[in-house]
Amino acid sequence: MREIVAVPLTREAFAPFGDVIEVSAAATRYMINGGNTERFHDLASLAPGPDGRVIVSIFRGQPRPIPFEITMMERHPLGSQAFMPLSGRPYLVVVAQATGTPDAADLAAFLAGPGQGVNYAPGVWHHPLLALEEISDFLVLDRAGPNPNCEEIDLASPARVFL
Amino acid sequence: MREIVAVPLTREAFAPFGDVIEVSAAATRYMINGGNTERFHDLASLAPGPDGRVIVSIFRGQPRPIPFEITMMERHPLGSQAFMPLSGRPYLVVVAQATGTPDAADLAAFLAGPGQGVNYAPGVWHHPLLALEEISDFLVLDRAGPNPNCEEIDLASPARVFL
Repeated sequence: MREIVAVPLTREAFAPFGDVIEVSAAATRYMINGGNTERFHDLASLAPGPDGRVIVSIFRGQPRPIPFEITMMERHPLGSQAFMPLSGRPYLVVVAQATGTPDAADLAAFLAGPGQGVNYAPGVWHHPLLALEEISDFLVLDRAGPNPNCEEIDLASPARVFL
Repeated sequence: MREIVAVPLTREAFAPFGDVIEVSAAATRYMINGGNTERFHDLASLAPGPDGRVIVSIFRGQPRPIPFEITMMERHPLGSQAFMPLSGRPYLVVVAQATGTPDAADLAAFLAGPGQGVNYAPGVWHHPLLALEEISDFLVLDRAGPNPNCEEIDLASPARVFL
């Protein structure tokens, strides 16, 4: 079985899969509200598709055991999906590029910090929410609209992710 | 000077101004991810307008002194604006209904808990971000698009908000 050690989440490493939503010197940023507030502007490509709209939800996830066995992946071909942690805890992100059907060799695993969100580009394969340590809430930005927007596949052979 | 004691933020009390974004038994909710995750679905009316799009940013606000003197208000006529706290701290929300130009008598003040976001409906008057206690980050969902989308007014006489 393939064993993967999750690496720290960075914008550069995650770029093939989407955006990292975080306070960063790399962001467009400027002061507003009379100098009280710094705005880190437009941090992700939210893509609801031409016939969809962006909606906001909260996902409350049970923590996963570590090491965690990855047996399946999913994706949303019609829209992006973003997760921002609200509980001040790290979480795992397991992805594969949108092209083709992934197997264990195609997976990448990231450890996201408590101040880091991710936005999966449309069609990017990802594992469902992987909270750690305790029950954790995430703000989720995804798509509402017509037509089915979730594909799931079982991996031919599983992978095991370590921190 | 009008003195206002902030009241706890609730969906019912905030309804004239927009949405409260929170885990709530009143939300549409269902289990996903094989029973791992509960989805509290579509919690706010994100309204970017016909020629706008929803964008996601992070606002980092300095804490405000309490009591806080309200001397001005602003609004975004073309789109909604949502704030979700990321720092696990309460914050203040000061609003007035979209109709007319507010004075101190028209203001309502709410104390939002660390798990509560707000979404101002288009045109609803509100005070800029009112973080409390420490520097605090908020995820912000608002509008990008053509045409000016911020109006500010100075109140004829200020108001003072207490916790």
